[in-house]
Amino acid sequence: MEFTQVVRKRAMIRVYQNKDMPQELIDKILDNARKAPSAGFTQPQEFIIIRNLQQKEKLASAALGQEQIAAAPVVVAVVCNTQRSASRYAERGRNFYSIIDGAFSSMLILLSCVNLGLGASFVGAFDDETVSEILELPAHVRPIGLIAIGYPGELPAKYKRFSPEKIVHHEKW
Amino acid sequence: MEFTQVVRKRAMIRVYQNKDMPQELIDKILDNARKAPSAGFTQPQEFIIIRNLQQKEKLASAALGQEQIAAAPVVVAVVCNTQRSASRYAERGRNFYSIIDGAFSSMLILLSCVNLGLGASFVGAFDDETVSEILELPAHVRPIGLIAIGYPGELPAKYKRFSPEKIVHHEKW
Repeated sequence: MEFTQVVRKRAMIRVYQNKDMPQELIDKILDNARKAPSAGFTQPQEFIIIRNLQQKEKLASAALGQEQIAAAPVVVAVVCNTQRSASRYAERGRNFYSIIDGAFSSMLILLSCVNLGLGASFVGAFDDETVSEILELPAHVRPIGLIAIGYPGELPAKYKRFSPEKIVHHEKW
Repeated sequence: MEFTQVVRKRAMIRVYQNKDMPQELIDKILDNARKAPSAGFTQPQEFIIIRNLQQKEKLASAALGQEQIAAAPVVVAVVCNTQRSASRYAERGRNFYSIIDGAFSSMLILLSCVNLGLGASFVGAFDDETVSEILELPAHVRPIGLIAIGYPGELPAKYKRFSPEKIVHHEKW
């Protein structure tokens, strides 16, 4: 699909068809996700594919009960391996760059889903420690987002966005 | 350009032609950037377009002397207005969601530049306070990234990325 079209069509989809997703599509999505930039090309981004219902239900519960996580055929957890940047960037690596880099990959996943006719929903509201326990993340790996993915089972909601006049400034705030 | 092509072609470009950029292109880029998702659709993302050489030189110096910021015809500062999410999300809003949301918009800017034949470089390494002073940001507005943009004056460097086998996990870490 044409790039601008993908950007325009993207919206959070929280309801999915009861239909499995071929691994091939996940592979395509993650092949784009790993092309995200990263601070100093440290490539901290890693991905966990979750299909097991029990795992998804635990994650949904750690994410304030956001049901689309349990309902989606596939959840991709985007995590950042801060060990790759720790020696170079210390605290700013863990609490700033790793979040940015994880979000870069997440944005590519959301756009890739649109391009493949899939629906996705990014979830950042979760208890970090509980998610880390469920996914058995080592201490140096930080969860950034849980992305529920499936064939869309709802039309995207249309929200009105702020106009450029409200949010674009020149030279300074 | 086709979406997958844009993702594949994206790379940091730090050298630019000595050629001004029409405002129309910046408008197109920011029109995509404002379509980024945000936590609870709070839309914290705002953008500052910097063309003034003195402003750019000050920003370059606040960014550890990364010269592409002074050299680019245009710099877009992506900032997050945390006031829009503060009442709902408190600390996680300022120190997690706002960074993610700013990175979502930044990724859309980087991709939009590729789509328009432009080169861009994302800079996250800067002194927050100094950048806030230069841009006269209020305390509730947080700088997330400085993006240098221009007509590419170098070929993208080709780096080898981690293979999927190294960074993709199943069900848990």
